[in-house]
Amino acid sequence: MAVDLRNATGADVRAACRRGELTGPTPGLALGYVQANLVVLPRDWAFDFLLFCQRNPKPCPLLDVTEPGDPEPKFVAPGSDLRTDLPAYRVWRNGELVEEPTDISKHWRDDLVSFVIGCSFTFENALLAANVPVRHIEQNVNVPMYRTNIECRRAGRFSGPLVVSMRPLTPGDAVKATKICSRFARAHGAPVHLGDPAAIGIRDVAKPDFGDAVEVRAGELPVFWACGVTPQAALMQAKPPFAITHKPGHMFLTDVRDVDLDGE
Amino acid sequence: MAVDLRNATGADVRAACRRGELTGPTPGLALGYVQANLVVLPRDWAFDFLLFCQRNPKPCPLLDVTEPGDPEPKFVAPGSDLRTDLPAYRVWRNGELVEEPTDISKHWRDDLVSFVIGCSFTFENALLAANVPVRHIEQNVNVPMYRTNIECRRAGRFSGPLVVSMRPLTPGDAVKATKICSRFARAHGAPVHLGDPAAIGIRDVAKPDFGDAVEVRAGELPVFWACGVTPQAALMQAKPPFAITHKPGHMFLTDVRDVDLDGE
Repeated sequence: MAVDLRNATGADVRAACRRGELTGPTPGLALGYVQANLVVLPRDWAFDFLLFCQRNPKPCPLLDVTEPGDPEPKFVAPGSDLRTDLPAYRVWRNGELVEEPTDISKHWRDDLVSFVIGCSFTFENALLAANVPVRHIEQNVNVPMYRTNIECRRAGRFSGPLVVSMRPLTPGDAVKATKICSRFARAHGAPVHLGDPAAIGIRDVAKPDFGDAVEVRAGELPVFWACGVTPQAALMQAKPPFAITHKPGHMFLTDVRDVDLDGE
Repeated sequence: MAVDLRNATGADVRAACRRGELTGPTPGLALGYVQANLVVLPRDWAFDFLLFCQRNPKPCPLLDVTEPGDPEPKFVAPGSDLRTDLPAYRVWRNGELVEEPTDISKHWRDDLVSFVIGCSFTFENALLAANVPVRHIEQNVNVPMYRTNIECRRAGRFSGPLVVSMRPLTPGDAVKATKICSRFARAHGAPVHLGDPAAIGIRDVAKPDFGDAVEVRAGELPVFWACGVTPQAALMQAKPPFAITHKPGHMFLTDVRDVDLDGE
């Protein structure tokens, strides 16, 4: 890539995407800026999905929702264009992945509503800043994620299990992480569970449903957070005729600073 | 009224409404249970209003939103019926108040979506429990409310000014109140302003736009909170062909305890 995007702004990363210079994953880029999940749906599916997010705020913390047809999320990234400003997308028809483009301009329609949803990178940065270790970052793999036996609150045509991510921590760090993450309600907030994985329907932490396994050391508890894969799972289950999401790991960079998500 | 509803449950108060025994205001009833504002709209207006609440969470903290046609807010009051379980309602046509019934069964339609919205009674109870005085309760009048020059974030056909409520406090109590109310994000949360009323476009605190004036004593600051009248003002401005709200002060009693709104 032409410039070092690690210390760039969110707007710099979006511009690099728009120019076609960035088509890879975004973790570690524009450090300190909030990264977000993207879900795009036709308006006649948007009410149900907005309701699903409202009823399930821990896995689906909404940062911005656009008016139908408007590709600009005015509150988190004024001047941006969701059709061009992500590195890569996934296009879905009837619940099937049909394309992974780097630009969705040709798919755009006047009835599309975009949902910009908070992601765990925000609280992981806060944990690292407080010297709470994040194992999958240490091990340079993807975070382990699991389907649970906790059902999300259904909303219209959307339903599905809560998906969680897991980070192993000592009891002391688990308390510290809970305090820190409680401040980030719009980035999944406090953990939903800690300790016995079976209590939330996870048979084997060594076998995640998504992402990679990480080491849980002696004296550590597995700590579970609501995960942004939850809305994608609900989407795949509902099978709307048309939808667009970001490609996993290829997030939307906002103008919001991590610290600005700290608080209400 | 047949029974003392002060120490009743939320369900007791709803049952009294349903039997037609309670048609008066609800402040002070079912102490410790969350009271809520009600807004009912046809489905084709519901997406815009849901988006308005999502974009303006401080004045419009959503506690529950029903599926179209379903009169039961399953998450905050399972088994309840929003058509009969409030003491009194207001029916609006094209932004005009046309009726104040005590039952809305005859107005019900299959396309109506109900929004149950948090209210300040929750945090006022918490303030009183912490020995922070609430002047309008002391003076036995309605809380003073003001239109501000802060515009809400527009959502489709809904827009309007932020309406705030005011409680005068000493600087020490203002800090204490801020700490307490920060815990109640779904009951308007922390204050939006304190001190100079002109800074948010209020000319004279002695002349509220809604409710009653209260005394601001020497050494006290006026402290301003986002207010649940905001969505009603947006509703009156948007003039949907049909809407139903609660009659002011005649709230919906949920099964949720005040303490359960403390936290995420």
